[in-house]
Amino acid sequence: MSADLRFTDVGRLVVRCPDRPGIVAVLSGLMAQVGANITDSQQHSSDPSGGTFTLRLEFVLADLAARRAELEQRLTLLAGEWDMVWRLARAAHRPTLAVFVSRTDHVLQELIYRVRAGDLRAEIACIVSNHRDLEPVARAAGIPFHHVPVTADTKAQAEAEALRLIGDVDLVVLARYMQIVSADFCSRFPERLINIHHSFLPAFVGANPYQAAHDRGVKLIGATAHYVTAELDAGPIIEQEVARIDHRATVDDMRRVGRYVERQVLAQAVTWHVEDRVIVEGPRTIVFA
Amino acid sequence: MSADLRFTDVGRLVVRCPDRPGIVAVLSGLMAQVGANITDSQQHSSDPSGGTFTLRLEFVLADLAARRAELEQRLTLLAGEWDMVWRLARAAHRPTLAVFVSRTDHVLQELIYRVRAGDLRAEIACIVSNHRDLEPVARAAGIPFHHVPVTADTKAQAEAEALRLIGDVDLVVLARYMQIVSADFCSRFPERLINIHHSFLPAFVGANPYQAAHDRGVKLIGATAHYVTAELDAGPIIEQEVARIDHRATVDDMRRVGRYVERQVLAQAVTWHVEDRVIVEGPRTIVFA
Amino acid sequence: MSADLRFTDVGRLVVRCPDRPGIVAVLSGLMAQVGANITDSQQHSSDPSGGTFTLRLEFVLADLAARRAELEQRLTLLAGEWDMVWRLARAAHRPTLAVFVSRTDHVLQELIYRVRAGDLRAEIACIVSNHRDLEPVARAAGIPFHHVPVTADTKAQAEAEALRLIGDVDLVVLARYMQIVSADFCSRFPERLINIHHSFLPAFVGANPYQAAHDRGVKLIGATAHYVTAELDAGPIIEQEVARIDHRATVDDMRRVGRYVERQVLAQAVTWHVEDRVIVEGPRTIVFA
Amino acid sequence: MSADLRFTDVGRLVVRCPDRPGIVAVLSGLMAQVGANITDSQQHSSDPSGGTFTLRLEFVLADLAARRAELEQRLTLLAGEWDMVWRLARAAHRPTLAVFVSRTDHVLQELIYRVRAGDLRAEIACIVSNHRDLEPVARAAGIPFHHVPVTADTKAQAEAEALRLIGDVDLVVLARYMQIVSADFCSRFPERLINIHHSFLPAFVGANPYQAAHDRGVKLIGATAHYVTAELDAGPIIEQEVARIDHRATVDDMRRVGRYVERQVLAQAVTWHVEDRVIVEGPRTIVFA
Repeated sequence: MSADLRFTDVGRLVVRCPDRPGIVAVLSGLMAQVGANITDSQQHSSDPSGGTFTLRLEFVLADLAARRAELEQRLTLLAGEWDMVWRLARAAHRPTLAVFVSRTDHVLQELIYRVRAGDLRAEIACIVSNHRDLEPVARAAGIPFHHVPVTADTKAQAEAEALRLIGDVDLVVLARYMQIVSADFCSRFPERLINIHHSFLPAFVGANPYQAAHDRGVKLIGATAHYVTAELDAGPIIEQEVARIDHRATVDDMRRVGRYVERQVLAQAVTWHVEDRVIVEGPRTIVFA
Repeated sequence: MSADLRFTDVGRLVVRCPDRPGIVAVLSGLMAQVGANITDSQQHSSDPSGGTFTLRLEFVLADLAARRAELEQRLTLLAGEWDMVWRLARAAHRPTLAVFVSRTDHVLQELIYRVRAGDLRAEIACIVSNHRDLEPVARAAGIPFHHVPVTADTKAQAEAEALRLIGDVDLVVLARYMQIVSADFCSRFPERLINIHHSFLPAFVGANPYQAAHDRGVKLIGATAHYVTAELDAGPIIEQEVARIDHRATVDDMRRVGRYVERQVLAQAVTWHVEDRVIVEGPRTIVFA
Repeated sequence: MSADLRFTDVGRLVVRCPDRPGIVAVLSGLMAQVGANITDSQQHSSDPSGGTFTLRLEFVLADLAARRAELEQRLTLLAGEWDMVWRLARAAHRPTLAVFVSRTDHVLQELIYRVRAGDLRAEIACIVSNHRDLEPVARAAGIPFHHVPVTADTKAQAEAEALRLIGDVDLVVLARYMQIVSADFCSRFPERLINIHHSFLPAFVGANPYQAAHDRGVKLIGATAHYVTAELDAGPIIEQEVARIDHRATVDDMRRVGRYVERQVLAQAVTWHVEDRVIVEGPRTIVFA
Repeated sequence: MSADLRFTDVGRLVVRCPDRPGIVAVLSGLMAQVGANITDSQQHSSDPSGGTFTLRLEFVLADLAARRAELEQRLTLLAGEWDMVWRLARAAHRPTLAVFVSRTDHVLQELIYRVRAGDLRAEIACIVSNHRDLEPVARAAGIPFHHVPVTADTKAQAEAEALRLIGDVDLVVLARYMQIVSADFCSRFPERLINIHHSFLPAFVGANPYQAAHDRGVKLIGATAHYVTAELDAGPIIEQEVARIDHRATVDDMRRVGRYVERQVLAQAVTWHVEDRVIVEGPRTIVFA
């Protein structure tokens, strides 16, 4: 991007509607009318006859902050006409994250690193854990840490307490949080709750996937970042990756190798989410990477 | 694509012009006016201020063959106004290829396989070689084979003879052809002459790249498909891939492993070219994969 | 390998026994005594205390053919003492394969190519199919083709007929053969029957894995080569690989991309098997790649 | 490894000598005589006739610390007889590292993380930098930090000062240290000085490789970890990896993507070195991964 463009003027528009001829013309026409220059555009038609059309635009509009209301007004008008849902965001906006962890820090450390490096434009508002082990990591990073122990008996209260503590965050990230969150908790964060599962889903759903992978004798281990839904490990997949192992790998070796896959996969998924690149379409995601 | 869409009605439009606000609106407006439904769209701005805008559209237009002239007329009008170069193609069109080989058949076999499998929509019009070794491969595939020997003294005549034999093909592919083609030959096929070089360019330009890779002790070997220009191994890169080797690999092992990388890289590059996905931009390519 | 070594003198020894100190010394001592030069050695201890020790040696022994009996005699003596199973092979030996196919030829074509290219040192003794579609492929390659139709009612007779036709082959390869072979058939080829399954096992066991992968919205598709056992898609895995897809991929796109993964994975697995690099250890394989 | 094996009893032996029949028997015989159980063994013959033989053994020997002198004595005897160089190490030994950095912390952070996680068994004895930027990183990790500014005029004194400060470390790591070290400095750490170069060597030697990669229009960017020798970017390569980019990638995007490749490649190379898995053989390395 050239130097004379102000980052605060960069916007993103994500649109979904029934696929009809002319939709691109109408939306790009609107952008041209307000004087926005489209710098990136990605679209997807689930089926050109009767399917769903999804569009993500990046654009530059001088004085975006001041002109946002006008743009929203025009989009609202179009939305009625084209049966359209849309989301408008300023690139300069930094979404807030609540990160849930248990005892292992590799995914959390990666998120902290990427936020600091500027590769993940977000704020980690707080860290919640059912253990105290990672409090020093939070403190070193200057991030509030909440210890919320969970037992079978206190799960409901613990979740209520966690909800109160995290407040109104944009995204909840389960960064190797070794508790199953309730359907009620999930429903509070529709398409805003991301988990990292340490297997190549749908292989090895549930607990101890590395042990299960070892027992099956696989030659690749994997990790999957997905939106969490009420059904365990079954939500829409955002990103997956694998790493090669061989017959020498013990379960502990798999855990060690897997850490590097997990941190990469979750950090990538969170980054794409934060940049408005992920759109849920039924049981799948569209990722405009 | 749903069953009621006729493949013969699928078109592709590639457009390049100086980047100005409104260009997307104008082009999508034109498509809407003629009644085309855009099913895929990819674009690239080299620089939103004063750079070049490139767009590739896939669309469905009922009776495309009959309505092509009208579409071309409208595009010609726009082209003047927006300083635009464009290319319109029907997806059903099968470009013709002339494939040049020497003694090794792995890349040629891959091209033949992919054409037959329907993964590469093209016709191999003829095979040209400076050796007779692969004549049986050509014959088995039912493709005309031309033996055009080349020596240092006869190079110019040989190239003239080859040009005469291949005639008016859409694309020339050097599929491990172990002769350097002349600048004059290159100039006959601007952005229509693709070579596979058996290294990760710009490493190991020139002859014997696997020997050079072995001498340097690299841990990955690679292959590069590129458009050929007058300067050896310096044309715009379309695709590259690598494969891991270890200290046990001899030069012959590298050649063997490399064959599978070479065939994949060249076949991918030719497929993208044939589908109008590759646009040359100075020393680089834009690939709308 | 230097030019003065005769390929006919290259041998391979694979040994398994309970892990005890001294086993390497004893085996390498034996090789030294007969005058063999060990050129490659790979070993694996499932557990240094009370586990299983596996060793694969490549060696050069002048006049191997003539001295094989002596070597076998000495190994037989050792085997009793160390509770050892062993396999001795000459690298120059070309195992025979029976390849079972149905209607798609991509894996078969790859096997034929690699045998011809010298990358897979084996002979395809015959091709068996429940359809006639690939008879021309077999004929073009000069390989006997047997059409053995299978219906639910005739399955037992069909398998008996296939067994009679393939005779005493070293390895049976199911190269996208779309029939489930019986437990009885499997038992005839213990650790000598390899299948390619078109998913990343254990995900998507059974029929239509690409449809299942699409339904689940995975971001990587895979293929798995494994020894076939009585339980469907549950035998020891030899090799797996994946390819990246995105939200645009239809089930047909997955099938097309998957073909290139399948052919690579099966060809690799068969090559390793033929080179005595794969050792089954319970539900897993050791692969001395 | 089973629980009853003491980690302090795990040893590693690396041996190089002219390749002669019987060498494996002699070495494994010695290990058997002293009562060591070989748990891993990897070997390489550069050429079975007249080449060099390299062996790496992992073994368990009860009371290794106490019995080390005896083992060394026996190895010294053998060494004379077989013209052998050897290195014996206890797995429990943690080598010391001096890490040189400039302004970017991604590689340093990765080394600190892996040491803490136990994946890299080493101690970072100190961090040296020509800038003060990363002093807080060092302080947070509790590692001594030495600021040694370098200018064209003071280079020799600066290197002398750095040498004095780092003292007798086992390994020096250049973790994106943006100064060229002198031939004299290199000679102090033969095969004990590792650099990360931010390109796929030998492509893009020297400064600004990402700019050069952008100018050339490559489709993959890479990183290379190598031992440093007097000739710039020409020392033996330990590890390389690449990442895919597309036409949208600016030089800054390449830098960002490249950071994750660089940290992975250098951390892997240092880990292998520290575990005695890397052996220099002329211009190449043998890596017993």
